[in-house]
Amino acid sequence: MKGKGKLFIISGPSGSGKSTLLAEVLEKLDNEYFSVSVTTRAPRPGEIDGVNYLFKTREEFEGMITNGEFLEYTEYAGNYYGTPAEPILRKLEEGKDIFLDIEVVGALQVRKKIPEAVLIFAVPPSFSELERRLRKRSTESEQKIRERLEVARREYKQAVSYDYIVITDKPGDACREILSIVTAEQCRVSQREHLLREV
Amino acid sequence: MKGKGKLFIISGPSGSGKSTLLAEVLEKLDNEYFSVSVTTRAPRPGEIDGVNYLFKTREEFEGMITNGEFLEYTEYAGNYYGTPAEPILRKLEEGKDIFLDIEVVGALQVRKKIPEAVLIFAVPPSFSELERRLRKRSTESEQKIRERLEVARREYKQAVSYDYIVITDKPGDACREILSIVTAEQCRVSQREHLLREV
Repeated sequence: MKGKGKLFIISGPSGSGKSTLLAEVLEKLDNEYFSVSVTTRAPRPGEIDGVNYLFKTREEFEGMITNGEFLEYTEYAGNYYGTPAEPILRKLEEGKDIFLDIEVVGALQVRKKIPEAVLIFAVPPSFSELERRLRKRSTESEQKIRERLEVARREYKQAVSYDYIVITDKPGDACREILSIVTAEQCRVSQREHLLREV
Repeated sequence: MKGKGKLFIISGPSGSGKSTLLAEVLEKLDNEYFSVSVTTRAPRPGEIDGVNYLFKTREEFEGMITNGEFLEYTEYAGNYYGTPAEPILRKLEEGKDIFLDIEVVGALQVRKKIPEAVLIFAVPPSFSELERRLRKRSTESEQKIRERLEVARREYKQAVSYDYIVITDKPGDACREILSIVTAEQCRVSQREHLLREV
């Protein structure tokens, strides 16, 4: 009776507050909502294999690429990052909703394979606010900040083909917006068509 | 900066609990969200002109048809019912969201004129529950109940081209679903594109 699950992809520039937001959203929803990415980078202190990432060697990762096991993957700063297809497709078939945290290019790759995916872009209330937030992290060089802003500008341009924009302004607002999007998407006629087919 | 308003149309078969639901939704939102229909039928006791309906004579109504003043209109049991276009288009331009309570045929007429309209169909959790609810109103003849069910079947078939289905099961559920849909629609990229255009 129940429709297939929905795949929600959340992206957002560095400084958008996306990670905090996503943690907040997942806390309100079922634990099974989140998909774990695969990476070849070394675990950071405290990171747990299978929780934060699935940690693989380059050889293992490239084997997975060859076998077509990724919905999307990318290489960044010498490391691979990828989203494994099989667990996601299986859970969607079971009617489960899934959340992915991937950047814009990867998200648009996923949409080519799963056109029903729901793409959400998280941004601060203005671009100047994004810049302010990035500069507040005084740990980074001016060069690094400029690079991040340049990447953000590119992402903003590509995000016009997203479905939704949530605004990370006051705490809780963006979380409430995402929970509303999840509820609304579950009310889509495509998800509830069985109710109409009865007659 | 703010995008245009959104037009939400709620339809649902007789017995769906749509009227109670809509009253509940409007209570949670701003008063300006509701558009008043025009009719030629006589006011019922307690109905106020300009609140429940705008009451017009047949001559006045037909003049409005000739002038193209309706988004949609229909004739039912010898009376006209119509949705005036001007106040709605003006409020949408001002960025206001609007709710309309119209049946399926009218809603699909409106969508031809305003393709961005969001169409929501309210139904009980099953068609047999709809039948049970209609029969519980013991005031109606078997003939009348059969007619209502036949109309409902037709509406269910046409509702596949709606956007959302909300389920009027436990009190409050469908209202929460509609409020989520409203929030989600306000997060659409088309409504917030100005945030991306800044860069």
